[in-house]
Amino acid sequence: MKIKNPFFKKKNNIYIRDIFNILNLKIPKKNFKVDNISDLNSAKTNDLSFFNSLKYFESLKLTKANNIITHKKYEKIVKEFCNPIIVTNVLKAVASITQLFYPTSINDNIDFNVESPEKKKFKNVKFAKNILIGKNVKIGKKTQIGHNTIIESNVIIGNNCDIGSNVIIKNSIIGNNVRILDGAVIGKKGFGFFPDDTKNLRYPHIGMVIINDNVEVGCNNTIDRGSLSNTVIGKNTFLDNQVHIAHNVNIGKNCIITAQVGFAGSSSIGNKVLIGGQTGISGHLKIGNNVQIGGGSGVVKNIPDNSKVMGYPAKDIRNFLKENK
Amino acid sequence: MKIKNPFFKKKNNIYIRDIFNILNLKIPKKNFKVDNISDLNSAKTNDLSFFNSLKYFESLKLTKANNIITHKKYEKIVKEFCNPIIVTNVLKAVASITQLFYPTSINDNIDFNVESPEKKKFKNVKFAKNILIGKNVKIGKKTQIGHNTIIESNVIIGNNCDIGSNVIIKNSIIGNNVRILDGAVIGKKGFGFFPDDTKNLRYPHIGMVIINDNVEVGCNNTIDRGSLSNTVIGKNTFLDNQVHIAHNVNIGKNCIITAQVGFAGSSSIGNKVLIGGQTGISGHLKIGNNVQIGGGSGVVKNIPDNSKVMGYPAKDIRNFLKENK
Amino acid sequence: MKIKNPFFKKKNNIYIRDIFNILNLKIPKKNFKVDNISDLNSAKTNDLSFFNSLKYFESLKLTKANNIITHKKYEKIVKEFCNPIIVTNVLKAVASITQLFYPTSINDNIDFNVESPEKKKFKNVKFAKNILIGKNVKIGKKTQIGHNTIIESNVIIGNNCDIGSNVIIKNSIIGNNVRILDGAVIGKKGFGFFPDDTKNLRYPHIGMVIINDNVEVGCNNTIDRGSLSNTVIGKNTFLDNQVHIAHNVNIGKNCIITAQVGFAGSSSIGNKVLIGGQTGISGHLKIGNNVQIGGGSGVVKNIPDNSKVMGYPAKDIRNFLKENK
Repeated sequence: MKIKNPFFKKKNNIYIRDIFNILNLKIPKKNFKVDNISDLNSAKTNDLSFFNSLKYFESLKLTKANNIITHKKYEKIVKEFCNPIIVTNVLKAVASITQLFYPTSINDNIDFNVESPEKKKFKNVKFAKNILIGKNVKIGKKTQIGHNTIIESNVIIGNNCDIGSNVIIKNSIIGNNVRILDGAVIGKKGFGFFPDDTKNLRYPHIGMVIINDNVEVGCNNTIDRGSLSNTVIGKNTFLDNQVHIAHNVNIGKNCIITAQVGFAGSSSIGNKVLIGGQTGISGHLKIGNNVQIGGGSGVVKNIPDNSKVMGYPAKDIRNFLKENK
Repeated sequence: MKIKNPFFKKKNNIYIRDIFNILNLKIPKKNFKVDNISDLNSAKTNDLSFFNSLKYFESLKLTKANNIITHKKYEKIVKEFCNPIIVTNVLKAVASITQLFYPTSINDNIDFNVESPEKKKFKNVKFAKNILIGKNVKIGKKTQIGHNTIIESNVIIGNNCDIGSNVIIKNSIIGNNVRILDGAVIGKKGFGFFPDDTKNLRYPHIGMVIINDNVEVGCNNTIDRGSLSNTVIGKNTFLDNQVHIAHNVNIGKNCIITAQVGFAGSSSIGNKVLIGGQTGISGHLKIGNNVQIGGGSGVVKNIPDNSKVMGYPAKDIRNFLKENK
Repeated sequence: MKIKNPFFKKKNNIYIRDIFNILNLKIPKKNFKVDNISDLNSAKTNDLSFFNSLKYFESLKLTKANNIITHKKYEKIVKEFCNPIIVTNVLKAVASITQLFYPTSINDNIDFNVESPEKKKFKNVKFAKNILIGKNVKIGKKTQIGHNTIIESNVIIGNNCDIGSNVIIKNSIIGNNVRILDGAVIGKKGFGFFPDDTKNLRYPHIGMVIINDNVEVGCNNTIDRGSLSNTVIGKNTFLDNQVHIAHNVNIGKNCIITAQVGFAGSSSIGNKVLIGGQTGISGHLKIGNNVQIGGGSGVVKNIPDNSKVMGYPAKDIRNFLKENK
């Protein structure tokens, strides 16, 4: 299911010449409208997409996008499937184009449009004290919101949810029966930028956080929204306290993530994955289904389905235990 | 000293037949009243208790409980000391029975009964701004409470304490001269549940957090309350920032726990234990007195008194240093 | 540039006899005024300083202080440069003297002098809701302050800053274009004390947190102020979520510190240092410029410029990868 993103207004009327212009490329003769910038999987025909690593070759083969931003070294590969647009730094180019489409996505401006909730707007919602709610927020029946909690504009929360106290939620869509515990901060922009000696350039974050039904999010968790895609927590997954989830991470269903685990950006975690406390998962990895990861592990490569691993770096748990008898 | 738990109202008039009934066991001929469900150590004669691991054999020998929920495989062992009640899943059975005695212990419902503190109720207490205090809260003399802090119903705080700003305290009893620093969340239910494919079943948490005299709790710490027993921090123990303490953990006196350390559930830590930053302590372990644990360690087995350990998994520090010269 | 500390009022009229008196030393014949207690690098001629480790020998050679608190075993070394004052426990002596000069530096008393911001005092500052601001706070133009945020007395914040919601800032000086994200706690006293069987003695913290231009501080970070020196974050350094920075840490320019990294006290980090998630840096270390540290590392010794390290304990990354193929 594709969920519509209500958080970032897209500019229409962006043409390929506008894009070549900000990329300092030779303006093409033929001009045409570009609908959006998207990752390979979600791009439609008239969207731009980008290819920056052979890891995503399977997605390249299947993408619907006609035009792909890429590096010289991938020109031949891309040409087999789409029309390559060659730049020297793919991610910087994507950032500039994203900013062109979504001018408000660079910074997390404070939402000054929040107010105490009007009770007649939110029937069947139970509010505690000192709550601030933004514009166009939707909250389902029998949901409770704790003290001092801030829910920024356009956030959607389902039925029967319990949102704790001192929670901050922005740029997020939350299902039914979800519990968000005290002090969690959900939906801020991710830690993505281009280092620059005088002033780092921030990467746009137009993604959301999507939290599915029956999820529990622990105290003081930080869950960042996605850059181009979304950060997703699957149904019935439980997160303990002080967990950190970076941008674009996708966690499956029925996972158990214990305290102080950290996920770097863009990793994908299968269903029924158990992760012991303080484990770190590096970025851009694929962890399969039914994987068990012992506490304190550092996972630096993909893990196939049904594996049990432990260690730093994580390896087959039998080897870890044998070596550490 | 046994501290009375003011947080969860116990149902009286629970009979053994009620219990056999919810466990789907054959109803016994003889009916009798059951007073409570408790762990082996604290159970009284007419309480139910449970035995689920040989680790707790010493407690089984000493328990006062007449009736013990256990698994078929421990039937013989239990029979030597008490009357076994055989179930297929001990912890699920205990959870159901606990819920029978304490129907409100499954979820952390937001405390909607909080208000700004009435000054005449709390003489000699100094309150900062925007504080919310629940019903029947007791706060000792010369204690100060910081801005935006929430103290839920029935919490007891001693004399000369400094509670910081943005702190949340529930289900806790706090001694004298205790400092709780900004952003700490104390007393929420632990991360305990039975995984289920469609909706995990939460484990009841009827324990408290007990923080003894002269303790310091660091910023953004999370200390969960116990399930059947309590989570306890001993006198004059200091916790640095971002420490996580899971349910039922018992930390002794005069310990020094540096930043970002995490304790999994039900471990017991002796007196004068020093733990370096980012160390993780697995669940159900026993760490002795005067133990020193180097920073970054992962402790996965019991540690005897007076040991110095380091590493992942933690080992004698001399071996760790030799192997890593 | 030396930044004046507006947070702790120093007592004047402290004489050497007062100091010998609280140290229980034989009162000297000659009395003279002592201006301050400072570390070796920043001490002026009439300040007291202290020498407690050969690590600081280079600073001893260059210090301007005439009188140095030290241990018997360093008496000879100190005598070559200054006048030694011999005590049995250098740090306890320094703590007592610091408390003599700065009687309010032991505890973090809650700032009860905060109020809602007066708009006419802060022109060109945009305030969200429920903000509390202390006395003598300075905030620059075009700076925005988020909901529920507390800025204690004497804090200075530059122009064009974005301070998030639920943030607490005390004892800090913040430059221009700085972003502090939601839930960060900045400027509380460090985790420094002398263990004592009945009641630990807290170490005075008269330092500040200094955050330079263009820095970003992530959600739920904790940055403690210095004890005698300051905690400093260099220009254009970005910190991800849940980072912990202990007292006296000095981080250089253009660093990238990813999530859940922890720094123990008094370490110094160069410029352009990249640190992967969950890495721990032990105390009193010197990490050079252009260093890259892989995620999950435990750094326990100094790292020279331009190194790439990883592991626990951290070693040359090529060795780490070779050993873990």
